[in-house]
Amino acid sequence: MRADARDTARVLGELRRRSPLVQCMTNTVVTGFTANVLLATGASPAMVEHASEATRLAVVADAVLVNLGTVSAQTAPVMLAAVTAAGSAGTPWVLDPVAVGVLPFRTSFATGLLKHCPTSIRGNASEVLSLAGVTGAEGRGVDSTTSSRDALDDASDLARRVGTTVAVSGPVDLITDGVTVLEVHNGNEMMTQVTGVGCALGALIAACSAVEPSPLVAAAAATTILTVAAEVAAIGSPGPGTFGVRLLDALHTLDAATLHAHVG
Amino acid sequence: MRADARDTARVLGELRRRSPLVQCMTNTVVTGFTANVLLATGASPAMVEHASEATRLAVVADAVLVNLGTVSAQTAPVMLAAVTAAGSAGTPWVLDPVAVGVLPFRTSFATGLLKHCPTSIRGNASEVLSLAGVTGAEGRGVDSTTSSRDALDDASDLARRVGTTVAVSGPVDLITDGVTVLEVHNGNEMMTQVTGVGCALGALIAACSAVEPSPLVAAAAATTILTVAAEVAAIGSPGPGTFGVRLLDALHTLDAATLHAHVG
Amino acid sequence: MRADARDTARVLGELRRRSPLVQCMTNTVVTGFTANVLLATGASPAMVEHASEATRLAVVADAVLVNLGTVSAQTAPVMLAAVTAAGSAGTPWVLDPVAVGVLPFRTSFATGLLKHCPTSIRGNASEVLSLAGVTGAEGRGVDSTTSSRDALDDASDLARRVGTTVAVSGPVDLITDGVTVLEVHNGNEMMTQVTGVGCALGALIAACSAVEPSPLVAAAAATTILTVAAEVAAIGSPGPGTFGVRLLDALHTLDAATLHAHVG
Repeated sequence: MRADARDTARVLGELRRRSPLVQCMTNTVVTGFTANVLLATGASPAMVEHASEATRLAVVADAVLVNLGTVSAQTAPVMLAAVTAAGSAGTPWVLDPVAVGVLPFRTSFATGLLKHCPTSIRGNASEVLSLAGVTGAEGRGVDSTTSSRDALDDASDLARRVGTTVAVSGPVDLITDGVTVLEVHNGNEMMTQVTGVGCALGALIAACSAVEPSPLVAAAAATTILTVAAEVAAIGSPGPGTFGVRLLDALHTLDAATLHAHVG
Repeated sequence: MRADARDTARVLGELRRRSPLVQCMTNTVVTGFTANVLLATGASPAMVEHASEATRLAVVADAVLVNLGTVSAQTAPVMLAAVTAAGSAGTPWVLDPVAVGVLPFRTSFATGLLKHCPTSIRGNASEVLSLAGVTGAEGRGVDSTTSSRDALDDASDLARRVGTTVAVSGPVDLITDGVTVLEVHNGNEMMTQVTGVGCALGALIAACSAVEPSPLVAAAAATTILTVAAEVAAIGSPGPGTFGVRLLDALHTLDAATLHAHVG
Repeated sequence: MRADARDTARVLGELRRRSPLVQCMTNTVVTGFTANVLLATGASPAMVEHASEATRLAVVADAVLVNLGTVSAQTAPVMLAAVTAAGSAGTPWVLDPVAVGVLPFRTSFATGLLKHCPTSIRGNASEVLSLAGVTGAEGRGVDSTTSSRDALDDASDLARRVGTTVAVSGPVDLITDGVTVLEVHNGNEMMTQVTGVGCALGALIAACSAVEPSPLVAAAAATTILTVAAEVAAIGSPGPGTFGVRLLDALHTLDAATLHAHVG
């Protein structure tokens, strides 16, 4: 089933009205871009690195993102503390298991985080398969070597087992809570030529989860928002520099009419 | 009293002539943007993270910025060492107490840094009130919940008590050394939709403090430079992506005529 | 001897065909920009911070970059472990000794890294002279106080002694393996007004070293690619904001005809 443009427009409106505070514990490559994507869309980003502050912020924040891109011996315990605090406080949180399966430390760390019941998980097909325990699914760095469709059954199993929603990114995005599958057919290849677009999607899913009670609808809305904005941004962009700039502009000006026109 | 366009043009000219080396100990979200703002304006940014190097650089640098946005157990002692070295060497330094009052660790750390006599302090009204010891002034993340005008008396008290200059950012910026208050009425709302614009102002205040003996005039000049450039950048910008790019262009091309035309 | 446009076009074609995975251990100011430069050119960036993952990735990656810009007590041992693993695996690696000579910790750390046989070293004249053991060559932060031509003899000595290729950046770039010297006369002054352009060159040299067996040709090709793209980007750019964006666009669209037209 296709993700709904009307639902997306409603979630976007709520996001702008309430401007949720999203605590981002993300990788060092994409911090600035992630913050700018959230600001452009209408959310309010916050990043901290001290353990006691991360715990405190996870209680105050409207949503938490944990992205494992550059997780280290210093940041892993801070993430774990924040996730535990988010769980106690009922703050929705999103796991982005970047390059899980390829690299040893994060693979076991991400598996451990599943016990803390993420509201949603976002990854490419290789990452989702690795997290689901499918061996031999390893990608290459952040690039998937599998299509999202091939990962759907295992993604749905993972969603049911953990009690979460899984968003599998790819040319077609698939979002599943283990029962229903929503598809997003928007997007543009340039999204893979700017660093942090996938990571920013994790942050947007967190932001939407703060204002929409259904994690499935929230994740599909975030995916639709970003991929439609990418289509708008790609028009006339001569390369990834201009595309990255226009993506922020497009998120800022995105409205219901544009969503309906692009989703169909 | 309004900040003076002529003073600002003079400080900007000095900054470009001398290209002060500004050591930035800032948060991980805005490092790149901060460096680009300094370079576009004419200063020379330098960032280090090793304690021994931070101490050495604070002696060699023309100014130091300490921004607490993502202060951690690892970086706090490095900041303290640098500030101590700056004090001994007579290097001007600026404190940007991001989210002080909201988060526990940084609040006590920032209060301790006041003993090391910052040349200037830059923050929004909530941050300045919290640093001044006014309880119940906590903002929400980096967003102030109070206007700069409401914080003026406490900002002036803080400036007198610590012997510093306090720049309160907001739609109207107020800069006070406890005796004189300078107002800056420039700026554009898009400044709040790009991450790191406030943090970059802290860095620019440091840069101006390196070339202008009066901390009050330096902080007012930095504020005027950034807010006038923001007005130039906002013209025709469809969103925050383009605005952020044009802000760097506008800082690069800013001249006395533009300053006079916008400040009036 | 001038670097050859045909060689550069061939290396660029190989880079796009094979999309080498480049592990970047770089400074916190330029991570995002470095990743975007690699993506725009056609390579695949990867950044990790955990020691065990850095070691693992250095074996899997096609090239490794070690940039000392913000090296710390936490990151230095991770870099050392990665470089050791790269050496064992035969993965080419590039050393960018940012601000060596000016700052104490990195100077001794960089000297120690020379024993691990970097494939190439990239720096400005001051950094190369300091690494070569010439005292009194200290620059000022990241800015060189010496021309690349004045550093050539010491750069060639360093290249022979370590068994490496040395790329000395400046208005004229000189690349030497101790026997042959290649010159690159392209570039634009705006390259010094955007943070991370020099650091991105180190990453591009690593990427080219993954697909070109001669380190000398690889470093000259990377330098030519970036400096020609900078010339394209500078056309009509009103300032460093626009220039930085267009540089990514120009790297994305760079072709043999443009290389030949600009190199002559």
